[in-house]
Amino acid sequence: MREPKSLYITDDNIGLVTDLYQLTMAAGYFQNKVNTPATFELFVRRMPENRSFLVAAGLEQALHYLKTLRFSDSAIDYIRRHHSFKRVKKEFFNYLKDFHFRGDVHAIPEGTVVFAEEPLLRVTAPMIETQLVETYLLSTVNFQTLIASKAARVVLAARGRDVSDFGSRRAHGPQAGVLAARASFIGGCTSTSNVLAGNELGIPAVGTMAHSWVMAFDTEEEAFRRFYDVFPESTALLIDTYDTIKGAHLAKRIEAKNRLLAVRLDSGNLLELSKEVRNILDNDGLTHVKIMASGDLNEYLIDDLLTQGAPIDIFGVGTEMVTSKDQPALGGIYKLVEQDKGGMAIPRMKFSEDKVFYPSTKQVCRFSTENGIYTHDLLCLEDEACGGVPLLERVMEDGDIVINLPDIKVIHDRARESIAHLPQKFKDIKNTHTYTVKKSKRLQELKKHTEKGLREAANKPQKAAIVKK
Amino acid sequence: MREPKSLYITDDNIGLVTDLYQLTMAAGYFQNKVNTPATFELFVRRMPENRSFLVAAGLEQALHYLKTLRFSDSAIDYIRRHHSFKRVKKEFFNYLKDFHFRGDVHAIPEGTVVFAEEPLLRVTAPMIETQLVETYLLSTVNFQTLIASKAARVVLAARGRDVSDFGSRRAHGPQAGVLAARASFIGGCTSTSNVLAGNELGIPAVGTMAHSWVMAFDTEEEAFRRFYDVFPESTALLIDTYDTIKGAHLAKRIEAKNRLLAVRLDSGNLLELSKEVRNILDNDGLTHVKIMASGDLNEYLIDDLLTQGAPIDIFGVGTEMVTSKDQPALGGIYKLVEQDKGGMAIPRMKFSEDKVFYPSTKQVCRFSTENGIYTHDLLCLEDEACGGVPLLERVMEDGDIVINLPDIKVIHDRARESIAHLPQKFKDIKNTHTYTVKKSKRLQELKKHTEKGLREAANKPQKAAIVKK
Repeated sequence: MREPKSLYITDDNIGLVTDLYQLTMAAGYFQNKVNTPATFELFVRRMPENRSFLVAAGLEQALHYLKTLRFSDSAIDYIRRHHSFKRVKKEFFNYLKDFHFRGDVHAIPEGTVVFAEEPLLRVTAPMIETQLVETYLLSTVNFQTLIASKAARVVLAARGRDVSDFGSRRAHGPQAGVLAARASFIGGCTSTSNVLAGNELGIPAVGTMAHSWVMAFDTEEEAFRRFYDVFPESTALLIDTYDTIKGAHLAKRIEAKNRLLAVRLDSGNLLELSKEVRNILDNDGLTHVKIMASGDLNEYLIDDLLTQGAPIDIFGVGTEMVTSKDQPALGGIYKLVEQDKGGMAIPRMKFSEDKVFYPSTKQVCRFSTENGIYTHDLLCLEDEACGGVPLLERVMEDGDIVINLPDIKVIHDRARESIAHLPQKFKDIKNTHTYTVKKSKRLQELKKHTEKGLREAANKPQKAAIVKK
Repeated sequence: MREPKSLYITDDNIGLVTDLYQLTMAAGYFQNKVNTPATFELFVRRMPENRSFLVAAGLEQALHYLKTLRFSDSAIDYIRRHHSFKRVKKEFFNYLKDFHFRGDVHAIPEGTVVFAEEPLLRVTAPMIETQLVETYLLSTVNFQTLIASKAARVVLAARGRDVSDFGSRRAHGPQAGVLAARASFIGGCTSTSNVLAGNELGIPAVGTMAHSWVMAFDTEEEAFRRFYDVFPESTALLIDTYDTIKGAHLAKRIEAKNRLLAVRLDSGNLLELSKEVRNILDNDGLTHVKIMASGDLNEYLIDDLLTQGAPIDIFGVGTEMVTSKDQPALGGIYKLVEQDKGGMAIPRMKFSEDKVFYPSTKQVCRFSTENGIYTHDLLCLEDEACGGVPLLERVMEDGDIVINLPDIKVIHDRARESIAHLPQKFKDIKNTHTYTVKKSKRLQELKKHTEKGLREAANKPQKAAIVKK
């Protein structure tokens, strides 16, 4: 009998956590001796519907990957045996054996508000290195940015009340739960139910009780008392297992030590129930007992509840946040924008229908009013003096991390700050607005020029190099 | 400077991959000496919209977890230092130190078509063990079942054509990509771009080329030739980087060895382009060159393309499939259904609004016509002779796996078979139908009886035990 497979990602198998074509292209570049420096940028082509801004996240895990990426013997063995590689020379496998990423990376710091077309990450390295890392970088940055951006909306809707990530059980597998806890904390949540995120990242780990606890005792009262006895300072009673109103009265009966933290409502009409429960508690002077609500919540429901005056103090948000349910994928892409050929920097782009992007190595500059409110961004060539605040900073040099990786709380604060500096309309969760991302004149001209050159080249068998500037 | 964190799941930290309340409840049960056997069932309360059936998946990773789960010293140290645990006695931490799962598990085999209310997994063990494993089991079974079910729809839409999973870059993190590759293969895909899934599971790993390859050479023709030289037997040319029609003509020019596998279209009007490209190829006798299409495809788009006669041979499906974009979460839950008290099996349930479920340990029996077409299922008590084919089988006994874990190809075939036995209307991807899941008379009576007893108990401080049957 064979053992069950974990399907963990590990430092040993990380080289295979990619799309096959990255490896075939790598072999193709290797055999064709195409390995001069190239620059790829990772960006979102268009904003997802219902999103006026994104919150950059995932950089730390991207850097971990770039620093750790190796091809183990067993990984190389798999590649070598794959039928596509049968004509690939053994030098390529030796190359993989010695591989580690030695490139430069620029990135917009995690927790920064970003928009479509803005490179979140820029990788410069020999062609093969830049190509091989695409899939993992995308899956890491796409997902965490997706969730941080969704969480920011949920937190905005909660109007200063705490939002806790309760989503692990509905996240896309065990690792997605941990990554979602990280990303949603970056987006503004103040705690998570995910214990590993608590231990690894120092995010406050919180919890209440499950219905199974209440069901495991012969009466609800016994269930409540037993829990409160063990956790007198940190009990939030789940009062909806049988009848929420009776549950609220029971909660009062067992609140002897004056330390009950909260009651939790997880079903029914949260607006009416929270008002009734608040009354029941307040009538006995239990004004210190908070009301927590959970159960398929999202930013729209939270906004409606609060607009209608629901006296809810804490929101536990799971499924809708950790899957970004209304927009469950971020279409981040990773595109070759520049390539060194014989010492010349050749700008690169494609122009498939609807899939045009700007060529060359770029910077994003942010402009603000005197009060610090963002007015617009400018996408420009890296070496332009744009005037605003440049967002991309060097984070890796020759494969070494050259920044002090910030604590997650610093990133959380940065996101709060960055969102605070957005004009108010972009914080409206119900109406989407488009933030202005201008393009510098030089960038626009380069794009026109590059496209023209490529179209001409496409009509001739011979090359038509377009030199930047 | 600190090192970047991987946020990998490992055997060492797996004990913390859970919600905090599982650990507080475990401590609560421990100190209250509530640890008699209990049974939990994992099921979906209601079918997601736009789904007429689900394909069970994720069991193997669930069993890996149950077999592997331990609490490492550092995990225990974190729990002990968490403020909620300050009054928890040291005996509980000793219990965690020695913990391993010793329970029994029944499950519906992976690849079986299942429906709402049917337990996919049933766990029987001392109360603490059953409770502690909830979060991980849910995240594993929910996600893989979600993706296998979505993939099954995509594969049905493709009407016998191959569907390949291309989703890793948009999956919810690196591990989600591998899990999605596994689940989508179970759902009917025939290959994946994810190399780790190829190596770990033996799923055929496939790939074409990226736009960056085409852009990396001065002309498209050079890009095509260079790739074809290295991979003469396995080249699929991506022809849409600049102009799809010109790309198709170019593909013909370089097809010298008569072995070009395919061309790939990744943008534009796939219906018109595939027809034009087919003509271009066929006019030169290149009828063996297949057309692959990709680019934000889903079951509806594939169905429309084929209905309109698009000559597409292979579909590469990514984002929409691996995030189950129209339904990005499966609401599987894990509920206490029975508990041993003084040797009596006490059925358990809750009756929060809209959240009622059937108590006690259950079996699912499937009924078919003489030709093997499924007619309905019956949810009944485990010890009932139901007449149909029972779906839940014992997979773990006293913590040991007692089945031969099937190869992924066996599961893939089982799913194809199981879907083939569904009445035609359930395979209609555009119109949702509700499969009949009857409840046995004994189960219905037990539910009524249990609810009545619990309502009475809720009104009395003293217990009201309800004994099964």
